[in-house]
Amino acid sequence: MARTSLSGFPEWLPEGRIVEQYVLDHLRRVFELHGFAGIETRAVETLEQLEAKGETSKEIYVLERLQALKAAENGERVSSRERRMGLHFDLTVPFARYVVENANELDFPFKRYQIQKVWRGERPQEGRFREFTQADIDIVGLGELPFHFEVEAPLIMGQALSSLPIPPVRMMVNNRKIVQGVCESLGVTDIEAALRGLDKLDKIGPEGVREELVKVGITSEQTDVLLRMASITGEDPQSVRQQVNELCLSNDLLDEGLTQLCELLEIAGQRLPGVIEANLKIARGLDYYTGSVYETVVVGHEDLGSICSGGRYDSLAKDGKRVYPGVGMSVGVSRLVSRMLSAPMVRATRRVPTVVLVAVNDETDRFRSDAIASGLRERGISADVAPQAAKFGKQIKYADKRGIPFVWFPGNDGEPDTVKDIRTGEQSAADIEQWEPQPCDLHPRVLPVN
Amino acid sequence: MARTSLSGFPEWLPEGRIVEQYVLDHLRRVFELHGFAGIETRAVETLEQLEAKGETSKEIYVLERLQALKAAENGERVSSRERRMGLHFDLTVPFARYVVENANELDFPFKRYQIQKVWRGERPQEGRFREFTQADIDIVGLGELPFHFEVEAPLIMGQALSSLPIPPVRMMVNNRKIVQGVCESLGVTDIEAALRGLDKLDKIGPEGVREELVKVGITSEQTDVLLRMASITGEDPQSVRQQVNELCLSNDLLDEGLTQLCELLEIAGQRLPGVIEANLKIARGLDYYTGSVYETVVVGHEDLGSICSGGRYDSLAKDGKRVYPGVGMSVGVSRLVSRMLSAPMVRATRRVPTVVLVAVNDETDRFRSDAIASGLRERGISADVAPQAAKFGKQIKYADKRGIPFVWFPGNDGEPDTVKDIRTGEQSAADIEQWEPQPCDLHPRVLPVN
Repeated sequence: MARTSLSGFPEWLPEGRIVEQYVLDHLRRVFELHGFAGIETRAVETLEQLEAKGETSKEIYVLERLQALKAAENGERVSSRERRMGLHFDLTVPFARYVVENANELDFPFKRYQIQKVWRGERPQEGRFREFTQADIDIVGLGELPFHFEVEAPLIMGQALSSLPIPPVRMMVNNRKIVQGVCESLGVTDIEAALRGLDKLDKIGPEGVREELVKVGITSEQTDVLLRMASITGEDPQSVRQQVNELCLSNDLLDEGLTQLCELLEIAGQRLPGVIEANLKIARGLDYYTGSVYETVVVGHEDLGSICSGGRYDSLAKDGKRVYPGVGMSVGVSRLVSRMLSAPMVRATRRVPTVVLVAVNDETDRFRSDAIASGLRERGISADVAPQAAKFGKQIKYADKRGIPFVWFPGNDGEPDTVKDIRTGEQSAADIEQWEPQPCDLHPRVLPVN
Repeated sequence: MARTSLSGFPEWLPEGRIVEQYVLDHLRRVFELHGFAGIETRAVETLEQLEAKGETSKEIYVLERLQALKAAENGERVSSRERRMGLHFDLTVPFARYVVENANELDFPFKRYQIQKVWRGERPQEGRFREFTQADIDIVGLGELPFHFEVEAPLIMGQALSSLPIPPVRMMVNNRKIVQGVCESLGVTDIEAALRGLDKLDKIGPEGVREELVKVGITSEQTDVLLRMASITGEDPQSVRQQVNELCLSNDLLDEGLTQLCELLEIAGQRLPGVIEANLKIARGLDYYTGSVYETVVVGHEDLGSICSGGRYDSLAKDGKRVYPGVGMSVGVSRLVSRMLSAPMVRATRRVPTVVLVAVNDETDRFRSDAIASGLRERGISADVAPQAAKFGKQIKYADKRGIPFVWFPGNDGEPDTVKDIRTGEQSAADIEQWEPQPCDLHPRVLPVN
């Protein structure tokens, strides 16, 4: 379904776009029902902004005006490196910049959603594109942000994803304070190295992680405990607390993280049972999370990787003396839609928005068909008019190929108009002021395949 | 309202985005009511594709992976020029490529709409951005495309724009066949030069155009006729025909163009009176139009330039022995929205989607407020929960600052819940299963100013 004449830059056929648009509309609806305001940021940032995070700089697409490039080829000066712009590789960096720039005009805590394309120059793989759409929510505070938002964010995303026509999702939650607390009480000082190692658990297995950690000076005994910690999972807060207690470690940070994780599980169990579980291997690599972290897989499609990730930052952005803590999650829409189409998990009931094709008896009579279509549209019913006054068989075929369910025939010589449901063949007299399709036929639907 | 910390790259505050989203939703709705299927194309094209049109090549942003740039700085080979990619500068070039690549999977005539960002490296001015959103419709045929689509496209756009809360729009229509026919019967052979000259009429006036045309070898007598032609306007087909006849020229091409233009005016006068007029100065420069051409201004805001332009191509795309004629129009959404906000023409009734803020009596009681909010959301009512169990005055202020119309107070000790309309101060008992806002309060509205 993805047509990729440029590797890593997916495009959908109209029926695929109906599925993607359905997912985007659904996410937007859920975000807006929860009071998130939509914003967009420009596609470009200065290299300085983009490179502030270091690690991801290798994936950035840099922009240069073609004319400037040509001038450079002729030996003229080009813009200095710092002034250069690149395409954003996520929506968090631009959002942080937007918050700082507009802080005086925004109301905090500021809840925003943002659905846009992002670009990364990395090697394309299944589910990994160079251009893809993300759908983010973030809640950002001024100076402070209460913990309950770390519970709210995964519940909103869990609900949004669970109500899509896809297999169940499993959202895995951890808390950086637990990992940090464990490291501290073990005497592991290079926490970044520990995080980096644990992050590869799924890819290289416990023995691989052990090798990595030993290499950076973490002892085998310390690694044992880290690996035992990383194996802890569960939906039940009591059971998770028990498993962590069995590590026989304790400090304030660990206790605080564990209390938060258990509170999240407790509320999630009441409000969205069966979706959210603790999974203490979730590390989220080098991102600057400081509290809850989240990853989400589609059950049976774990190979796809996480389709919705995020976490809590104590400092999403900074601005002189002001600090903006935040919690956010990001849905990888292109990754998810790509699998929905290729599995396939879903099918669209048609490839156009059209409910009714109005037939044309004769080209001199086109104005009557146009008037019928206008009447239907005024009542919110999508209508198209046959492109040519061809034989009716050919006009019906136009509708059939596109999945348009109804063909409307203008009556001749005072005969009433008739409407044919081309799926059943039923045809009956119809009045332009009265006729209504079934509500389920009003828009293309996206239905699960088995 | 536009925050442009990078010149030419506009960003909107949340209330501005509500206006932009309203315009985008409105356009999408009108396009879908007319049976157009939505597609998106990738943001990048090969330079080869982008430069095929020559004239616009100066405005292209070229992409390079940062890593490759760094390698080049170290003397390593970079990708060859032909393999380079640039950001698309319109949606027509990518659509033509998409049609050719997917021709076997598409149904012709193919009616598609496409709403995306485009980028041009030109100098930013009022209403002229380096990153902006376009909303395009095109109808593309395989081998042939009946003339009636040249009437349909401007009627759809005219209707879409006329139903926005902005001043009236004036859509100006011409037909390239008239211009070509006039040139041919005058013996003007460099039609491109004539088009280029006439296109500057608004900018440099008739005397300026005369100078330009004489410079390229068009005589003063020929120029007289071209300028008389360019002064012809009108909504009434008889009057336009009369004015053209007074040029005392005739050939098949001119006659055909005039007949088409008059037919368009005739139908437009019936279906959308007062919006569409003939204006024979409309040339659309060097674009490869072959029939009807369109430009649209907002009355009283002519200085903004055209907000919706397009025309008929006999060959939108080619593919070996197949040719794809098309007719399309493009709305400059960013240009329009930017003026809607700066004039201002409109205001949004609030800056968030939220209908109800649910107050929190006490942090230990937050679960009750969450449950109320969930109940409202299940019935499609956007609800937010107060971030902190602060004094009610502070919670009401949270709603007030954002324009949220209602605050819901959970009842204490068996008292019923109450809802306050903070605009009127009215407060009354409310039941979570029953309460409904007025339909007009369900979503933020965009209202005309004055």
